[in-house]
Amino acid sequence: MTVSSEHGTHSADPAGVADPLDSLESLASSASFVRRHVGTDSDSQRHMLEVLGYENLDEMLQAAVPGTILLDREADAARSSVPAGIDEPAALAELRGLADRNVVRRSLIGLGYHGTHTPAVIQRNVLENPAWYTAYTPYQPEISQGRLEALLTFQTMICDLTGMDVSNASTLDEATSAAEALMLARRTAKRNGDVFLVDADALPSTKDVLQGRAAGLGIELREVDFATEGVPEGPYFGALVQYPGASGRVWDPSEVIAEIRSTKAVAIVAADLLALTLLASPGSLGADVTVGTSQRFGIPLGFGGPHAGFVAVRKGLERQLPGRLVGVSVDADGNTAYRLSLQTREQHIRREKATSSITTAQVLLAVMAAMYAVYHGPEGLTRIGRRVADRTATLADLLVRSGFELTHESFFDTIEVRATGLAQDIATAAAEGGFLVHVAGDDIVHLSLDETITSSDLDAIVAIFAPFAPEPGQELVATDSGRGWEELVRQDAFLRHPVFSSFHSETAMMRYLRRLSDRDFALDRGMIPLGSCTMKLNAATEMAGITWAGFNAIHPFAPPEDVPGYLELITQLETWLADLTGYDTVSLQPNAGSQGEFSGLLAIRAYHASRGEAGRDVCLVPSSAHGTNAASAVNAGLRVVVVGSDAGGNIDLEDLKQKIKDHGDELAALMITYPSTHGVYEEEVRTVCQLVHDAGGQVYVDGANLNALLEVARPGEFGGDVSHLNLHKTFCIPHGGGGPGVGPVAAKAHLAPFLPGHPEMQQSEHPVTGQGVQIHSGPPVSQAPYGSASILPISWTYVRLMGPEGLRHATASAVLAANYMARRLSEAYEVLYTGESGLVAHECIVDLRPLTARTGITVDDVAKRLIDYGFHAPTMSFPVAGTLMIEPTESEDLAEIDRFVEAMLMIAKEADEVADGTWPVDDNPLVGAPHTAASIATGEWTHPYSREVAVYPGSWTAPEDLTTHDSAQMRIQSKYWPPVRRIDQAFGDRNLVPTWPSDEP
Amino acid sequence: MTVSSEHGTHSADPAGVADPLDSLESLASSASFVRRHVGTDSDSQRHMLEVLGYENLDEMLQAAVPGTILLDREADAARSSVPAGIDEPAALAELRGLADRNVVRRSLIGLGYHGTHTPAVIQRNVLENPAWYTAYTPYQPEISQGRLEALLTFQTMICDLTGMDVSNASTLDEATSAAEALMLARRTAKRNGDVFLVDADALPSTKDVLQGRAAGLGIELREVDFATEGVPEGPYFGALVQYPGASGRVWDPSEVIAEIRSTKAVAIVAADLLALTLLASPGSLGADVTVGTSQRFGIPLGFGGPHAGFVAVRKGLERQLPGRLVGVSVDADGNTAYRLSLQTREQHIRREKATSSITTAQVLLAVMAAMYAVYHGPEGLTRIGRRVADRTATLADLLVRSGFELTHESFFDTIEVRATGLAQDIATAAAEGGFLVHVAGDDIVHLSLDETITSSDLDAIVAIFAPFAPEPGQELVATDSGRGWEELVRQDAFLRHPVFSSFHSETAMMRYLRRLSDRDFALDRGMIPLGSCTMKLNAATEMAGITWAGFNAIHPFAPPEDVPGYLELITQLETWLADLTGYDTVSLQPNAGSQGEFSGLLAIRAYHASRGEAGRDVCLVPSSAHGTNAASAVNAGLRVVVVGSDAGGNIDLEDLKQKIKDHGDELAALMITYPSTHGVYEEEVRTVCQLVHDAGGQVYVDGANLNALLEVARPGEFGGDVSHLNLHKTFCIPHGGGGPGVGPVAAKAHLAPFLPGHPEMQQSEHPVTGQGVQIHSGPPVSQAPYGSASILPISWTYVRLMGPEGLRHATASAVLAANYMARRLSEAYEVLYTGESGLVAHECIVDLRPLTARTGITVDDVAKRLIDYGFHAPTMSFPVAGTLMIEPTESEDLAEIDRFVEAMLMIAKEADEVADGTWPVDDNPLVGAPHTAASIATGEWTHPYSREVAVYPGSWTAPEDLTTHDSAQMRIQSKYWPPVRRIDQAFGDRNLVPTWPSDEP
Repeated sequence: MTVSSEHGTHSADPAGVADPLDSLESLASSASFVRRHVGTDSDSQRHMLEVLGYENLDEMLQAAVPGTILLDREADAARSSVPAGIDEPAALAELRGLADRNVVRRSLIGLGYHGTHTPAVIQRNVLENPAWYTAYTPYQPEISQGRLEALLTFQTMICDLTGMDVSNASTLDEATSAAEALMLARRTAKRNGDVFLVDADALPSTKDVLQGRAAGLGIELREVDFATEGVPEGPYFGALVQYPGASGRVWDPSEVIAEIRSTKAVAIVAADLLALTLLASPGSLGADVTVGTSQRFGIPLGFGGPHAGFVAVRKGLERQLPGRLVGVSVDADGNTAYRLSLQTREQHIRREKATSSITTAQVLLAVMAAMYAVYHGPEGLTRIGRRVADRTATLADLLVRSGFELTHESFFDTIEVRATGLAQDIATAAAEGGFLVHVAGDDIVHLSLDETITSSDLDAIVAIFAPFAPEPGQELVATDSGRGWEELVRQDAFLRHPVFSSFHSETAMMRYLRRLSDRDFALDRGMIPLGSCTMKLNAATEMAGITWAGFNAIHPFAPPEDVPGYLELITQLETWLADLTGYDTVSLQPNAGSQGEFSGLLAIRAYHASRGEAGRDVCLVPSSAHGTNAASAVNAGLRVVVVGSDAGGNIDLEDLKQKIKDHGDELAALMITYPSTHGVYEEEVRTVCQLVHDAGGQVYVDGANLNALLEVARPGEFGGDVSHLNLHKTFCIPHGGGGPGVGPVAAKAHLAPFLPGHPEMQQSEHPVTGQGVQIHSGPPVSQAPYGSASILPISWTYVRLMGPEGLRHATASAVLAANYMARRLSEAYEVLYTGESGLVAHECIVDLRPLTARTGITVDDVAKRLIDYGFHAPTMSFPVAGTLMIEPTESEDLAEIDRFVEAMLMIAKEADEVADGTWPVDDNPLVGAPHTAASIATGEWTHPYSREVAVYPGSWTAPEDLTTHDSAQMRIQSKYWPPVRRIDQAFGDRNLVPTWPSDEP
Repeated sequence: MTVSSEHGTHSADPAGVADPLDSLESLASSASFVRRHVGTDSDSQRHMLEVLGYENLDEMLQAAVPGTILLDREADAARSSVPAGIDEPAALAELRGLADRNVVRRSLIGLGYHGTHTPAVIQRNVLENPAWYTAYTPYQPEISQGRLEALLTFQTMICDLTGMDVSNASTLDEATSAAEALMLARRTAKRNGDVFLVDADALPSTKDVLQGRAAGLGIELREVDFATEGVPEGPYFGALVQYPGASGRVWDPSEVIAEIRSTKAVAIVAADLLALTLLASPGSLGADVTVGTSQRFGIPLGFGGPHAGFVAVRKGLERQLPGRLVGVSVDADGNTAYRLSLQTREQHIRREKATSSITTAQVLLAVMAAMYAVYHGPEGLTRIGRRVADRTATLADLLVRSGFELTHESFFDTIEVRATGLAQDIATAAAEGGFLVHVAGDDIVHLSLDETITSSDLDAIVAIFAPFAPEPGQELVATDSGRGWEELVRQDAFLRHPVFSSFHSETAMMRYLRRLSDRDFALDRGMIPLGSCTMKLNAATEMAGITWAGFNAIHPFAPPEDVPGYLELITQLETWLADLTGYDTVSLQPNAGSQGEFSGLLAIRAYHASRGEAGRDVCLVPSSAHGTNAASAVNAGLRVVVVGSDAGGNIDLEDLKQKIKDHGDELAALMITYPSTHGVYEEEVRTVCQLVHDAGGQVYVDGANLNALLEVARPGEFGGDVSHLNLHKTFCIPHGGGGPGVGPVAAKAHLAPFLPGHPEMQQSEHPVTGQGVQIHSGPPVSQAPYGSASILPISWTYVRLMGPEGLRHATASAVLAANYMARRLSEAYEVLYTGESGLVAHECIVDLRPLTARTGITVDDVAKRLIDYGFHAPTMSFPVAGTLMIEPTESEDLAEIDRFVEAMLMIAKEADEVADGTWPVDDNPLVGAPHTAASIATGEWTHPYSREVAVYPGSWTAPEDLTTHDSAQMRIQSKYWPPVRRIDQAFGDRNLVPTWPSDEP
């Protein structure tokens, strides 16, 4: 006797195939998540389709997407490995099942990853708060002052602890920070040759990532045990010293650093932040650059990430600093305001001069780490550092008294214990006792302590070692920390700014976090219509798993038997992503889109080399490409050649043919974005790919715009050999205010062996469609085996909830929203590029140049005026100067889309009033935008427009009539008050202030 | 070999005893939670003590607290069962251990508690968001518009579904709602005698609570099976019909209701909200009153609570409605605004005319239930209702086809299956299969379905029954729901207001929740210095456990073997609370202070009766008492006699002696609050208690002000026989915007047998200090065995984190803060009452009458002006008209306390400018307060004070200078914008609008 199951019926439902709207209703009727994720309901969609002149979503898709690539739904449904969507409780139950299969043991492994207590007030009010996690990168500083302040605090914390002058606002992890420092050294000390020295006692994963980065650039990495060997003869352009060493050894590197610097090479120190509460800072020891991670400042282990690395430099090197840098400037009223400084990277980069590819930072994690320091303060951090050191010393003494020998006499939190032939047995006993240790060969057990280790844990650890002790144990008399490094004891104060001493009670901390987040505009307030950034819903259910211990309390080097749930989730996600993109295999190793891109290009180079075609080193990049494309190509050792666009914004086929011909056997690859960065489904994409393949090249398809493709077309199917995806765009990982991201690389089978692996991967084989499994043996591009593993459950949950039908509906709804918006905006603006049918893909470029010419009102003015209307500006002047690129995504509802359109239309009218002379060019609501509350409350009002026009320009931001009957009106009653007025960008760059002032008040 | 443990050292630390500040430092140095909970650090406390002229906290306590009651710390420390405090991770680990010992099975028990899916967007953004849960009761409507709108939505939802005209904004649970309806009926139909008819098919716990309430008031409860017997002869003043019946039976009660009403009795229906999506509403069937619970609208089972009950009435009865009622009014600018209507209850009550004791509602849960309806909308709710009905019908059919008989042919979600002699065996098999069923005698298995039951669950349930089937099962052909109640099918639409159809996508819902919460002022924005309400930190760690399945997915009638973790937690908490208060035993049954009070008084009555002194029915209440004291006494059948106060605000000893003498053998009890509601440690409390005891009376000590006593003095030790506690005041359960609360009753051993029990208590014996255990056999006062069990982990965690030392430090810090504030405010205001040393306890009363006399500025003006300064007003005109009662609590830091003081001093200066004639009496910043942003942005500014003075009166609310070096300044940069101006209270009562307008726009 059976009763029909409610799950698994969607893809089998024949009624659903006919009309996606009916399909949606069917999805909705089974309490599907799809209707929660997609903002427009079927009534709204009918209206929008009517405006565009289409009967249904399928008809619209058929018009928008080239027939040569559009998937046949029915034929396709049968093929997909992606299961039909299920409801939220069911998906959570499945996810919980996976989490519960992981074994949470206490880690003593160390090696760059340490247990830590995330203060509950920070977890709840930052990590679990959409006001923080749904924010975008702070490119619009006026509406990002909260997280910019937090990042300034992060930079200050790093500078204070490391003794450096300028820190970036986070990088991806310690290993990639080291790689960025290597590149910085190379730029700075170019005449010093191609050799880079790396400490033999550096973290193994740092060495691995450096090796991968060096390989692409023709750099020779040479390993040196600086502590015992000193510095070898030059020339070399830089050197990295690990402090304390990965083995736990603490020694004074100041002489080695001096020696390195004496050759004009760059001295880089990779340092442990907690150790620096007790040990002399790298800056005081002479370092040029310090790198590291802030993971142990309250960021869960997370099976390897995400967490926030950093690169900090001495004065003089700040303009070489990779990544983002927050600085202090002033706003139009002369008030202090924060902004990103020195924006010579990212979108603004000149393609052929790319130097750094870090466009994804780790803002959310950097904020958490900074707030951990704010909450504990200098005394609290020192207390934690001292307790770790004391317990380590106690443990060392106890073990020595039991007869064990230690490798090093001087240590902070890590000891290596000699136990000849017994290392593995001890590790086994430790696992039984609930601890993970690191086995360094047959004879060495490596133990790292952290703030979570209690006195009773010490008892337990000692008890684990006892049976293996060479001599019977003795009673401990007294212990002292700092043994062996008395000369290195830190002398100088740190974290002296009041921000580090004002919020030590939970009440004060909670309010500080609220106040910071209140300054910012995130998705929980309104639409963030950023072209190419896909700011869609980050559902609470998707976010639930990341704070479960089964996912976040696991060390990245935990043994395979501890992480079967993770491994299954990873395998499923790899398989699903490969299927959805039409590729054969996926590596989740890259922890940012830039890393995925870099590793995809390395795979292409390695593939050519494997076929004896190492000479293929030219990478064709269309003029419309994202700046990071070129940067990644340069990093991968490729030469960038730009291909032009035709009038329609498409790749100029003739120019492409010419460039292919010009470069002949040197052609390595073409990098394209699809739909193009112009927001158009280019008709000839199959032809383009074919031309490159015919010439022996590989096709790299940037996955940035995958939100326009899922279950509609597949890059791997229409010609791509390799793509990176952005799980933080298409697959719902929140932007976190500018990171974390995940940038998997997906490829056809022939590239599978060259995708990034990692020596510590618990499961080095990966599914390759139609071929079983294969080892990815490219170099790791991020520090942890599976990159930012702890946030993969977000994307897993999204796919599990939506299923193929839901994903297709999301894609169609995103395209519908963009086209509806483009159509409505065309009342006042020109939409720059469309496909042959007159349709755009999932975003549209609105040309403001005619308006600027007519009225003097610039893109900047429009973007800032949108703040007064309660919106985050779209992407500005990319890929075309003088334009806005707008992507509403599928998650916005019709009321919000209409509200944005109305705002844009009203702004056009306001600009016309400037042109008409109603308002002067230099004093009108547009050039005065954004307007703060203070600007209308204080001083005299001298403007030709009223206060009301300044701050309540749209009816929806007007004084609230709280009981209105109009639902659209009800939904949008809201007024976001920017904390500052327009920020002077140039002033900030001229007067670089990268930290809180460090003097006492 | 051992290493000293870091836990458990505090109370043993001899250094800590000497100076509490040293002690704090010692606590802080071990990463104690105490320094997170207490806002003032040792430097701040030194400063504050200096202002007051004391060397240390102990010296201050010795001056403030009568020596006759002050505890001897050293002697005391040894005695306490409360363990020393531990750090947050350790406490969470212990709590997790308790949760993990509970077994989570799927409940089919029903009986008023149903499984439900809490939408993740609501859990994250309401239940886990301090902006919602740390808010206070919306007595200051201008800064509570968000939750008032949500409550109006709750009322609308209840009215629409029940077909009634006016609903309150939640009551404690269904059973107490029924009890309130009984009292409403009695007030309304007083001439109809003392009999109340209750449906034999009512929920058992409803009957039990009704019985307890009736007993106190001399009402006879008569059980009738209305469905089969019809209505008996009168007279009776009211009747309650359960619809559908507890047994699942659905029948048409309209004739019974008509019959009841024909006798002028009040017809009350207890209805299931989900059933009402399909069944004709009680209103349409003629009911006068409908009661019920909104638990199954997204509120977790929680082992019984908290969740939000309701009482809804037809037009004409609204002024009899118990509990709070939100209504619509207008503000000073004529804009629509919400407020609490008809405030004839609560603080405003006239003591001798008390009718209702509901001062704790369930706002947080009512908000969640309302938002569940908003998120699902009418179609979504109906879909859920229909699915439950369909599955129930399917299950019924399958079981019938297997040969089982059902008790009733007509049902919605509940069936009773006849299985002669097998009921217990089936229950055992069900438990093994992961389901809990209700066994109703040897032969009946009772099954209730809910929205969480899937088709595969049905398969599983049928499989459980299969082996017990009288005949082999047959294949199911077709099922239909609504069987047996075709005539009762609901015909009218509901939830037609746009609020129920505008927020169905998660993005829209998330933004709506954010917008609502942004209108409100909660603890996450600033101090809420409410006298007698103790708005202190609700720490994130304390809140963590309530959303764990091990606590919140458990049915209140789960068998004892499923809830050992809960039972241990409950036993520990009972023991700790008894110890901390000096009593011998505690019952956690009451789910609000009012219920605890009521049951404490019932215990006194029962105790007297057990000794043959039933004639003792006079309850002495001091004139300064909280209004609920008298209301509870009346409800418990006691006669209230008021005792006067002397000039110092203390109980007038002579008057007390006289009243004792006057009432002789009629004296039942004295109810006092300690410290008094005047905020003073009365010197003579021991004498007062002794006088009452000597006259044969019992002493009831209201625990509202326990925050001034913990580990300093103990009510049970200085003379109390019984007290209720407010876990939502002293023990950190958040106020939730006006509920939930927990009001345990604590008593000396002789009252233990009379404390409230519950027939379904899994562990009916309770610890009684020095005597082992005892059964509490008083009637239950709330519906669930352990009241609001799922929030008990909050208080458990608080005590576990603080330990006795930490609690004492918190008490001392709270007293220090109040005295520091009183001293500083005395620059401009008179502090009304102090003890003999000139000190107050944990709160102070500031007399505004001189200021009002001098300047015309009223308490209201000051309270509303505080909003412009960014503060929630203190308690207004209680217990003395024309005053403010201020309680800073221990959790505020010095900067926030000073900021409040500065605001009050500046307001005094502003008032003086009115007196000076600088500003007219009818147009100045005080009478104009609060000022909205709209008020300075729109229209013409005609006031004699500037916009800046209006909205930025304090430097800390001024335009933000974001990089100031001054930490105090940094901490307080913030501007809260009230959404409306001052609300016209009288207008709202004259024009009662208790729901969203129900017509389509």
